[in-house]
Amino acid sequence: MKTDKDYQNRLYSYKRNIFLQGERVGRDHPSFQSGINAVSESFRAALDPQYEHLFTTTSHLTGKKVNRFNSFPRSVEDVLKKVECVRTLAQRLGGCALRCGGMDTLSGLSVVTREVDEEFKTDYHSRFLKFLQHMQDDDLVTSILITDPKGDRSLRPHQQVDPDMYLRIIEKKSDGIVVNGAKLFGETTVQDEITVGPTRAMTDKDGDYAVSFSVPADYDGVTILCKPIKALKRNKIKAPYAEYGYPGVTITVFDNVFIPWERVWLCGEWKYAGRLSFLIALYHRTSYCGCKAAVTDLILGTAALVAEYNGLEKEKHIREKLAHLAATAEMIYACGVTGAVRAKAASSGTFIPDPIYINAGRYHAGMNIYNEFETLSDISAGQGINLPTEEDFVTPELDRYTKKYIKRKADISAENIWRLFRMVDEMLYSEQAGFWHAAGLHGGGSPIMERLTILANYDMDAKKSLVKRLAGIS
Amino acid sequence: MKTDKDYQNRLYSYKRNIFLQGERVGRDHPSFQSGINAVSESFRAALDPQYEHLFTTTSHLTGKKVNRFNSFPRSVEDVLKKVECVRTLAQRLGGCALRCGGMDTLSGLSVVTREVDEEFKTDYHSRFLKFLQHMQDDDLVTSILITDPKGDRSLRPHQQVDPDMYLRIIEKKSDGIVVNGAKLFGETTVQDEITVGPTRAMTDKDGDYAVSFSVPADYDGVTILCKPIKALKRNKIKAPYAEYGYPGVTITVFDNVFIPWERVWLCGEWKYAGRLSFLIALYHRTSYCGCKAAVTDLILGTAALVAEYNGLEKEKHIREKLAHLAATAEMIYACGVTGAVRAKAASSGTFIPDPIYINAGRYHAGMNIYNEFETLSDISAGQGINLPTEEDFVTPELDRYTKKYIKRKADISAENIWRLFRMVDEMLYSEQAGFWHAAGLHGGGSPIMERLTILANYDMDAKKSLVKRLAGIS
Amino acid sequence: MKTDKDYQNRLYSYKRNIFLQGERVGRDHPSFQSGINAVSESFRAALDPQYEHLFTTTSHLTGKKVNRFNSFPRSVEDVLKKVECVRTLAQRLGGCALRCGGMDTLSGLSVVTREVDEEFKTDYHSRFLKFLQHMQDDDLVTSILITDPKGDRSLRPHQQVDPDMYLRIIEKKSDGIVVNGAKLFGETTVQDEITVGPTRAMTDKDGDYAVSFSVPADYDGVTILCKPIKALKRNKIKAPYAEYGYPGVTITVFDNVFIPWERVWLCGEWKYAGRLSFLIALYHRTSYCGCKAAVTDLILGTAALVAEYNGLEKEKHIREKLAHLAATAEMIYACGVTGAVRAKAASSGTFIPDPIYINAGRYHAGMNIYNEFETLSDISAGQGINLPTEEDFVTPELDRYTKKYIKRKADISAENIWRLFRMVDEMLYSEQAGFWHAAGLHGGGSPIMERLTILANYDMDAKKSLVKRLAGIS
Amino acid sequence: MKTDKDYQNRLYSYKRNIFLQGERVGRDHPSFQSGINAVSESFRAALDPQYEHLFTTTSHLTGKKVNRFNSFPRSVEDVLKKVECVRTLAQRLGGCALRCGGMDTLSGLSVVTREVDEEFKTDYHSRFLKFLQHMQDDDLVTSILITDPKGDRSLRPHQQVDPDMYLRIIEKKSDGIVVNGAKLFGETTVQDEITVGPTRAMTDKDGDYAVSFSVPADYDGVTILCKPIKALKRNKIKAPYAEYGYPGVTITVFDNVFIPWERVWLCGEWKYAGRLSFLIALYHRTSYCGCKAAVTDLILGTAALVAEYNGLEKEKHIREKLAHLAATAEMIYACGVTGAVRAKAASSGTFIPDPIYINAGRYHAGMNIYNEFETLSDISAGQGINLPTEEDFVTPELDRYTKKYIKRKADISAENIWRLFRMVDEMLYSEQAGFWHAAGLHGGGSPIMERLTILANYDMDAKKSLVKRLAGIS
Repeated sequence: MKTDKDYQNRLYSYKRNIFLQGERVGRDHPSFQSGINAVSESFRAALDPQYEHLFTTTSHLTGKKVNRFNSFPRSVEDVLKKVECVRTLAQRLGGCALRCGGMDTLSGLSVVTREVDEEFKTDYHSRFLKFLQHMQDDDLVTSILITDPKGDRSLRPHQQVDPDMYLRIIEKKSDGIVVNGAKLFGETTVQDEITVGPTRAMTDKDGDYAVSFSVPADYDGVTILCKPIKALKRNKIKAPYAEYGYPGVTITVFDNVFIPWERVWLCGEWKYAGRLSFLIALYHRTSYCGCKAAVTDLILGTAALVAEYNGLEKEKHIREKLAHLAATAEMIYACGVTGAVRAKAASSGTFIPDPIYINAGRYHAGMNIYNEFETLSDISAGQGINLPTEEDFVTPELDRYTKKYIKRKADISAENIWRLFRMVDEMLYSEQAGFWHAAGLHGGGSPIMERLTILANYDMDAKKSLVKRLAGIS
Repeated sequence: MKTDKDYQNRLYSYKRNIFLQGERVGRDHPSFQSGINAVSESFRAALDPQYEHLFTTTSHLTGKKVNRFNSFPRSVEDVLKKVECVRTLAQRLGGCALRCGGMDTLSGLSVVTREVDEEFKTDYHSRFLKFLQHMQDDDLVTSILITDPKGDRSLRPHQQVDPDMYLRIIEKKSDGIVVNGAKLFGETTVQDEITVGPTRAMTDKDGDYAVSFSVPADYDGVTILCKPIKALKRNKIKAPYAEYGYPGVTITVFDNVFIPWERVWLCGEWKYAGRLSFLIALYHRTSYCGCKAAVTDLILGTAALVAEYNGLEKEKHIREKLAHLAATAEMIYACGVTGAVRAKAASSGTFIPDPIYINAGRYHAGMNIYNEFETLSDISAGQGINLPTEEDFVTPELDRYTKKYIKRKADISAENIWRLFRMVDEMLYSEQAGFWHAAGLHGGGSPIMERLTILANYDMDAKKSLVKRLAGIS
Repeated sequence: MKTDKDYQNRLYSYKRNIFLQGERVGRDHPSFQSGINAVSESFRAALDPQYEHLFTTTSHLTGKKVNRFNSFPRSVEDVLKKVECVRTLAQRLGGCALRCGGMDTLSGLSVVTREVDEEFKTDYHSRFLKFLQHMQDDDLVTSILITDPKGDRSLRPHQQVDPDMYLRIIEKKSDGIVVNGAKLFGETTVQDEITVGPTRAMTDKDGDYAVSFSVPADYDGVTILCKPIKALKRNKIKAPYAEYGYPGVTITVFDNVFIPWERVWLCGEWKYAGRLSFLIALYHRTSYCGCKAAVTDLILGTAALVAEYNGLEKEKHIREKLAHLAATAEMIYACGVTGAVRAKAASSGTFIPDPIYINAGRYHAGMNIYNEFETLSDISAGQGINLPTEEDFVTPELDRYTKKYIKRKADISAENIWRLFRMVDEMLYSEQAGFWHAAGLHGGGSPIMERLTILANYDMDAKKSLVKRLAGIS
Repeated sequence: MKTDKDYQNRLYSYKRNIFLQGERVGRDHPSFQSGINAVSESFRAALDPQYEHLFTTTSHLTGKKVNRFNSFPRSVEDVLKKVECVRTLAQRLGGCALRCGGMDTLSGLSVVTREVDEEFKTDYHSRFLKFLQHMQDDDLVTSILITDPKGDRSLRPHQQVDPDMYLRIIEKKSDGIVVNGAKLFGETTVQDEITVGPTRAMTDKDGDYAVSFSVPADYDGVTILCKPIKALKRNKIKAPYAEYGYPGVTITVFDNVFIPWERVWLCGEWKYAGRLSFLIALYHRTSYCGCKAAVTDLILGTAALVAEYNGLEKEKHIREKLAHLAATAEMIYACGVTGAVRAKAASSGTFIPDPIYINAGRYHAGMNIYNEFETLSDISAGQGINLPTEEDFVTPELDRYTKKYIKRKADISAENIWRLFRMVDEMLYSEQAGFWHAAGLHGGGSPIMERLTILANYDMDAKKSLVKRLAGIS
């Protein structure tokens, strides 16, 4: 297993195929540092005796210990551990681990490559397992990358005026395929491998759009456009929270890219495009039932600490809100646990969580997140937004003002007050916070996506039948 | 095991210690029939091959098959089955089974009688097990009965001007104790045995109020005052939904009642009063995670059927609401499942569900129930409230109007439309519906009770520590 | 002006064209008494020096003092007084006055009869004014009656398989018209005159459905089917709240009914069907901005009194909810006031309130009502649902229990506690309460109707233009 | 009247008493530019024939035309115009005008200086009017500045360990007073005059804290610490929205500052401290009923445009949300209008809006704002957060990707799509957006402040009396 340094060094060695505000840059650009810090934590945790039981597992391919993020669940226990592992990591980072999506994509592929092989007598699965072993052996980081630009939303892929609005196969050759298109969202600036899957179910006319593959992140023809999200940055008063962050949202462009067969996971089998996108989303929403619970844990812990610092921790209307946050975190987690407990094995041996519970968990997470940010803003009464800057807080000429006027109860130091409310400001009102508002609502699929998934998988007729029987309707 | 007829016959044989609007009545008064019908279903289900795996279990006392409602969970599997059993029964009844509370009280007593024995070298537990075997052998129905009148809410039990505002021990004798007081809420009109527990934690000065016992429902000195809830009644067009219902809310008065020692479960051990009330509530909220999911199942099924009858089942804004209902039902159930999965054995061998998840489940159920009724009222657009009466619907002189003007799409019969909207009217706007609004919000403890329980059991310091670490607060 | 007795006596003299659960009954049937009591209050208030400034106005037709409910607003001040008058009356009744709808229908007709005359050179308006004078002179009560059965919701009126699914003109004669059909909802059992209007906009093919007229409530061919709502009834402890109530929902059937021209207000002018239904709804929603504020006033006052009786009136989480209720009542009322302030004169001289504000007010009222009932249920903690019955409270044998166990703080009598919680029970959990849940959500048009009306009248392009300018979109 | 240039030039000439991240800077620092741009708009509008009827008024002191922001309302019409003026300006700026608070403070002072004079025979009012004329003549911009640091929240001002935790008078001299302390929040970096008022009601022991005055923004002893909020900045594709913004939150420190009597507005008359803070807040919340409606206008317009660009403008679930936004904007505005209509004259001739309606308006605004941002994020589906940067959008090497993959329907240009979603990103996810989340919830007083104000001013006994009468409680 590799160290965080190994990961960082290889990242810095990649070709400069990233553009940041019009300029070509390397992975060592400061803009990506907080994201790299976040990913690094998953390497450190795997080597930390306190956490390794969660962050590592035994490869069923090699019998070696590997990072859990490069595995797929092979038991109910694995699914439970995955959820707990993600919650733990997000608690430590105060946010996104940037590595779950890759695991979730690999999990989905482990199922579908096998199912496609069974129907079409192809050999995707064994090639995929070889790739997975490569990921495990080198302890690599891969992506979740499924959203296409989509063009005119009222048209299917093959109906678009510009056929590239969904990533597509433009040529099949003896040694591989050539693809063209782009994938939106993602954080491919800090990942080793780019793995791509379809964004939706396809019809027989959309066969060219049923495609999945992996390539190295700096592969020929791949261009990464990054929209930076301003990192939290502390100049004078450091804190772990400000070390981590989202490294910018990417548009990953594939301009006539050749993919050799050994890295192709779906190629025209349109019937399985929907299955694959469903599964990748399902596994990702399973991760979400852990990471979203952690986000609420942090909002709750912060709100509780603010109440304590402000001397309001006994107020019933405050306690009501704290209890609501706790009940929300655990309700989301409970959906993850129940989805895990009811997981069923696929033909590949991969365990597939129950989609109803997982989607319910992600759905309620998305429906609650703005309200949770609002609760923290409410309890902290807007404090944080007017905090003295670091420099004003420590500059000798000014600290006689800033340290004086920030004080509350005598037993809490000015610095601790500053530290807490700075974190509140960063959590709620910074550009990173803005990103987390979007991610909390839409990441892993907006609530509307979970609603659709639930409706598609729910036995609504059974519920109607209960009612018909009671109403005496024949 | 007994049949529903056995249960009904013995009920009808009890002494007439019930008052209904000022008059002394027997259990055969029509006002109780819908409640008796509901309880009877738990007897029928236990004898039904389709359901017996859920509704029966093997007595660990006798090895015989007994009704699950007269058992306590001895494994995670038992807790899971209990939740599923309650959901199934509530789905069939369209409402309350009226029998879970007894099971939940017995479960709580199985734990505490043992714990008290361990500390005080008493022998409550073996006596309790004898009582439990009596319950099993005769397939009896008992109560959950904990709420005291409480008098002045700002005073503790022993501080009240009238010392009877909480049920209390007024004398300890060699062969038993004498108690005085009353218990509010409950449905003791349709139960065989009345089991009583404390409503809250007690202090050393409240020792006389730390009392728990069981007596037959028509025992000397016990008077039951019943506030009737008008039963759903169909004169012309019958339906199962209208056969069941809540038989009226009772105030059970204990006027200098003698309880022999073999039926006393707590007597002055004030340290365990809170423990016992916590556990009875916990088990009852566990049941709630099943029955409340069933209530939402029915609201969902009804709303879906209304949308179908009105030709709106494809509308996105309707589907959004149906999906929300489904996600709510399953989220509550998931809390029950997770509470079960994380259950731990007490010294008595009883499995105690995880209080955080169970309380989170009941909490969200309570917080959502008014909104769910609102959703059904919204989707059904107030239809039902103006439905022709049964008599107008079938009277020859009038049915040329009523059957004509109720029609919608050609393929749905006027009668089925009437049946559906009559059930909507009964679910939402009847006096029974009013009761279910109250019960949905407060039954098993109002949301404020779950918030307090969560706060009392939640590791808030752990959440603060996460934040302190991230903020760099030492 | 007439007295309440005059009103009652003439009502009792009407022909028995009402069916109640299959039986033909007169207006003196006890089922209608609470509704008649409610209407009577509007007669008493008009003769009460304290209220006459609100409840009467000067007829612009005769210069005589008339009941405001038989007038239409001829100034901004009139609209303001109308809203205040309705709020005051609903506060006194604890619910619906049953007389606003008639006023609102008359107001709409005053506008449209004139506008139709202007376009088609008809003479509806002068005939309508004669009818209005008749209403004023005899101080009569009329209806709002617009909802048709609608049949298949996906078809327009003229497309229905059964052409009667919307009330229609089946014959035009020299002396009048013949109509057939039915109107749903309404309380025509306690009204003197039945006035009917179209339920929606019509197309040229729906001309036969563009019809409006008035007939006496016991007119030949009119049959009233009443779905009773169980009245609040006190046997032992009377209270004003229980004297009033909704007298049952009617389906009013018109079976080949002849309407003389002097009572026809619209007859085939389909372009004005939508205008008339819009205006009747608008005026009714204006009333709603008063009566709904009063409903919230009562919920607020009750919740405040419950908190006081329970000793919780200083608790912040309770006060938070009381303040929310107050802010909700006044926000709805403010929409009414603003709609009034921005009222504009129609060609008839009638003032038409601003539809945006009026619909916003009714919309928010509908969106909040379930939550308000929930708040009262929450603050009253389910008490009320388990209150001793009247008989148990006063029967000598039982009152030593009931009066004892109901007590709270020493300075509040058992009877007052009973009185308060009985009203809570009646407000929240009775069959009447069920009706008010439906009416609060749907009365005057469900929230979806206000949303549609707002969208149809709102200058959305202006809002888009603001954004385009700011975004630099040309 | 002055021009925007006049305003800017005099601002740039002020002494450099501002600190920005530890450095002393002038008002010409780029960090303040967007704020200065926003204030400038109020100068331009006053000179714009289209808007001058709203943005100017006639001085009752001089009879000259002056900017409305330097006046106080002397009629109901003035209050109505003030609300409309603020809404209009906020619509044009896409956010805060930064000038209302000064007007609101002046309005409050106009009332209280007179009332204090009446009780204490002082002469604050005439001096205040002289200052007001100075503000009018030079068309100056002043502040709202009332929040003190507050220290230990459980102690009153005079009980604090550090007596400066509330701004206080430390010396009274013949020619003026000396004050010490600080005021939090505000935007004193872009204002000419700093006007200070008390933050709360005071007791007789807190007399030294009952102080109000005005000084020039660069006055001796005044130090402004600014916490910058990163401005929206466009490098390549300009748009008005990005020109304006909040210039940073200030802490304004008064270090032994001498205030001459002619600029002191309250000095120890503690009984009026609460009155003044109440009135300043009331006038500011009145402004809020205009500006918050405008914020919702913009959210609505943006959401509507996004729906149109995405081809979803006809979807019912989208239209439902747009209608809800419209109903929310107008409900808040209606509270402002009703507060204005019910305004009453103070002894100074100033019109004081009705506090119930104004506070209800601000309250509902605060309670809805997070939900509104959520709605826009929901409808825009997270698009915007992943928009290509300006540079990537226009750089020739990259625009073949960025302009290609952003396209939707053929008739909408890539640039317009970019422009719209860039504005979405700026509105929802930028650091400025973070500030507006805080300001929307807390600006002008958090919802808890309005709740307290409503409770303090609401006739709750009247509501209880309604209920007592109906319940028969004597």
